[in-house]
Amino acid sequence: MGANGVQEVNGNSTSNIDNGKSLSSTAPWCPPINIDNINPKVLECQYAVRGEIVAHAERLQQKLLQDPSSLPFDELIYCNIGNPQSLGQQPITFFREVAALCDHPGLLHKKEIQTVFSSDAIKRAESIVSSIPGRATGAYSHSKGVKALRTIIAEGIQNRDGYSADPEDIFLTDGASPGVHMMIRLMLRNKKDGIMCPIPQYPLYSASIALHDGTLVPYYLDESKGWGLEVSELKSRLEAAVADGINVRALVVINPGNPTGQVLSEENQQKIVQFCKDENLVLLADEVYQENVYADNKKFSSFKKIARSMGYTERDFSLVSFHSISKGFYGECGRRGGYMEVTGFDSDVKNQIYKMASVSLCSNLSGQVMMSLVMNPPKDGDESYELYSSERNAILSSLGRRAKMLAEALNKLERVSCNEAEGAMYLFPRIELPEGAMKAAQAAGMVPDTFYCKRLLDATGIVVVPGSGFRQVPGTWHFRITILPPEEKMPTIIAKLTSFHESFMQEFQG
Amino acid sequence: MGANGVQEVNGNSTSNIDNGKSLSSTAPWCPPINIDNINPKVLECQYAVRGEIVAHAERLQQKLLQDPSSLPFDELIYCNIGNPQSLGQQPITFFREVAALCDHPGLLHKKEIQTVFSSDAIKRAESIVSSIPGRATGAYSHSKGVKALRTIIAEGIQNRDGYSADPEDIFLTDGASPGVHMMIRLMLRNKKDGIMCPIPQYPLYSASIALHDGTLVPYYLDESKGWGLEVSELKSRLEAAVADGINVRALVVINPGNPTGQVLSEENQQKIVQFCKDENLVLLADEVYQENVYADNKKFSSFKKIARSMGYTERDFSLVSFHSISKGFYGECGRRGGYMEVTGFDSDVKNQIYKMASVSLCSNLSGQVMMSLVMNPPKDGDESYELYSSERNAILSSLGRRAKMLAEALNKLERVSCNEAEGAMYLFPRIELPEGAMKAAQAAGMVPDTFYCKRLLDATGIVVVPGSGFRQVPGTWHFRITILPPEEKMPTIIAKLTSFHESFMQEFQG
Repeated sequence: MGANGVQEVNGNSTSNIDNGKSLSSTAPWCPPINIDNINPKVLECQYAVRGEIVAHAERLQQKLLQDPSSLPFDELIYCNIGNPQSLGQQPITFFREVAALCDHPGLLHKKEIQTVFSSDAIKRAESIVSSIPGRATGAYSHSKGVKALRTIIAEGIQNRDGYSADPEDIFLTDGASPGVHMMIRLMLRNKKDGIMCPIPQYPLYSASIALHDGTLVPYYLDESKGWGLEVSELKSRLEAAVADGINVRALVVINPGNPTGQVLSEENQQKIVQFCKDENLVLLADEVYQENVYADNKKFSSFKKIARSMGYTERDFSLVSFHSISKGFYGECGRRGGYMEVTGFDSDVKNQIYKMASVSLCSNLSGQVMMSLVMNPPKDGDESYELYSSERNAILSSLGRRAKMLAEALNKLERVSCNEAEGAMYLFPRIELPEGAMKAAQAAGMVPDTFYCKRLLDATGIVVVPGSGFRQVPGTWHFRITILPPEEKMPTIIAKLTSFHESFMQEFQG
Repeated sequence: MGANGVQEVNGNSTSNIDNGKSLSSTAPWCPPINIDNINPKVLECQYAVRGEIVAHAERLQQKLLQDPSSLPFDELIYCNIGNPQSLGQQPITFFREVAALCDHPGLLHKKEIQTVFSSDAIKRAESIVSSIPGRATGAYSHSKGVKALRTIIAEGIQNRDGYSADPEDIFLTDGASPGVHMMIRLMLRNKKDGIMCPIPQYPLYSASIALHDGTLVPYYLDESKGWGLEVSELKSRLEAAVADGINVRALVVINPGNPTGQVLSEENQQKIVQFCKDENLVLLADEVYQENVYADNKKFSSFKKIARSMGYTERDFSLVSFHSISKGFYGECGRRGGYMEVTGFDSDVKNQIYKMASVSLCSNLSGQVMMSLVMNPPKDGDESYELYSSERNAILSSLGRRAKMLAEALNKLERVSCNEAEGAMYLFPRIELPEGAMKAAQAAGMVPDTFYCKRLLDATGIVVVPGSGFRQVPGTWHFRITILPPEEKMPTIIAKLTSFHESFMQEFQG
């Protein structure tokens, strides 16, 4: 028996006890890594957007494949995740033309492509490919991303905000998530370090904080004020955390809100910036829904623009802004493209971020290219401009109509109230579950809103995420539903949702 | 002053002391996150492949751009990283044709493409796109990757090994690195948990172990035996670690070796498998160079094949095999595609891996598609087969010639000895640095092999990585150089390297 076996006698190691088992001829093999001896931080981490309800939906999908008549519905409708193209949204033609040409630059030399691709897509692809060292779209790029693409993105930020942006502050990432993980890893030393997050929140933040062994310091959005973000709430929650000995390092703000859909006013944003400045917190601005604003009286302003307009610069304010190609009107989730703009950090800290990025070499090039297109779309006069604008406007206006349609329907339901989605891609209705439903959930050993969502899924095939997956005011129950199903399907979905809800209430209010 | 300010009085928080500074009107602003208060695990993590030498090279590149005559060379030659296309290697045409069509499936309906794309590329793209739910190549996939692509990859593994592979065991990742990080995160609970790694090693492993707060348990490859891996060495290092109270959880084997280039014999692999079985360790098999074998008397066998041939199954042996689209003859580094095949873990542990994958949603689709092409290339009879084979063979045979050419040249240098590269993409020559060079390095405050590499870079523009970045037997000095520069450039590079080395020796042996 080997060294671990020897140690097993001392019995001071799970893996070596397993080892003992595995070596005994009678006992069944126990794998060295099992649920009782893995990293507890992994166990602690939760991500409901692809959690138990979604797993159950996948089982139902299999069942439906084997026997289409086995369930009370003929298709699953995945409203659990902001994944527009999975529900039939078509990609933006110009973006895909450029992507294809960059993926196969050999095409650029063939004149046949003139008939297949728009002239500005060809021109754009040629300029991108020639800006990549050696025209090598298959090579690792600089760990931050291709310099020329970061430059285009910085110009896009500058055009958006009216304030300068530096390509050296841009880190291109595989979607926004890896950037969030990198910043959280950088800032969290131990459980005494905290990051303030909105409740309800997008579970990427709670998951990442759990994985990196820090403390999530919650602040609550005010549902009664359209999920408003009050600085007084920030102050009192910070004070409470500090009293508990937590070093609060950063504030996460998701604007437009996920799962809550609110769009912050500039005045509100100014107060948030001032709060971070006064408390010397890093502001982590999740701005991936910046192009998803539907409320007529609201518009998106980046926190960078707000901070700069208040006179705060990279020399006196720490701000990280996250963006992505997954949302907006393009919804290129599967390409995994994104960036973070890191301002107000010393160069030696930026070098540490660069080092972390380097350990994974670089983000994928097609995501990098797509991010540059999002920040520099066709302009008036370009051959693709008309098609691009019509595709863009059709998607955004339809999303606005769907958001309104669905919110109205939800508000008609008994014991359900729902704030409108001013932006983003979700509604987060509140349900007052009847006592009977609470008891039934308890009997089923389920969280009440999970119980409701599972019943909804079993009855209709509609997949939504329980509010408990985003955290919520204790004792309140919600679910998150995307506004992404095709507009023509909305009436059917609403009808299914409504009749399920009525029968659910009937069953449990009796 | 806010809550943090209040706490600052207690002075028990760096960030709040910073806060105090930032609030005082006279003192300069100190950012909340600075080099003295970031996560120490990040500081500890090192990744020399893109470390100080490469940073210096980038500065020189800028200098060269501003004034081409400012340096003793007219171009940087990046031999620091396995990035074939950055040095002019052309992509495999079939792979790029399919990639382009999957990126823009709209093309599949246009008949003009018949003249631009090969018929089997069109057929393959159509079959891939139609196997993706909703033909949505822009949608998030299942967190493990598109099921149909995992099925193709599993079939490829089965064809390679002659043993069955299960698509449910395949996790598609953005290159091999994220899979390695996921497994290391899963297994490491604290500093008392250890993972055995070869020395020299690819620094991804030491970086990931540092970031996840575990202990790297080194075992040494025997340079005098062609970087041989002796099981007796594994045993004694394991015993020593266990005696130190380390719970050793896994063994990392890189085959073919990086940076060392050895290809393990089947007999050697059997002993390694038996060692892991006896000690109940997870075997982490880094097999990303499986198609890079140049020695006539060597061939690659996967550890899965070896373990199965010994009668070990998923019910009694824990094995993770990592593969990537970045290496081989395709070298599609920038697309970030890879997979890990996870066998011999309980389903509840696999569910935890799935959850970790879900937190980042999915790997990028074009990387997923490319990985499926690598595992299922054109077959004899397909229109593209001839071109594919000629491209493949030209690249692999040239790599073999370059490996031999460069090793011979290095062995001619005074006080330099170099094992041949049986596989992979690197040579790892040993230099016996003269006393004078050691003193000069010390005076410059540099590690001796870093001093040598910096001198080489300043004199020739050739970028290599100091052996200390991979760890090495204390007191020995090496550097890693890729075999990737174009074959026609090799003589020039060898000449530059040789004349630099001679003058370096002259300077410091005097």
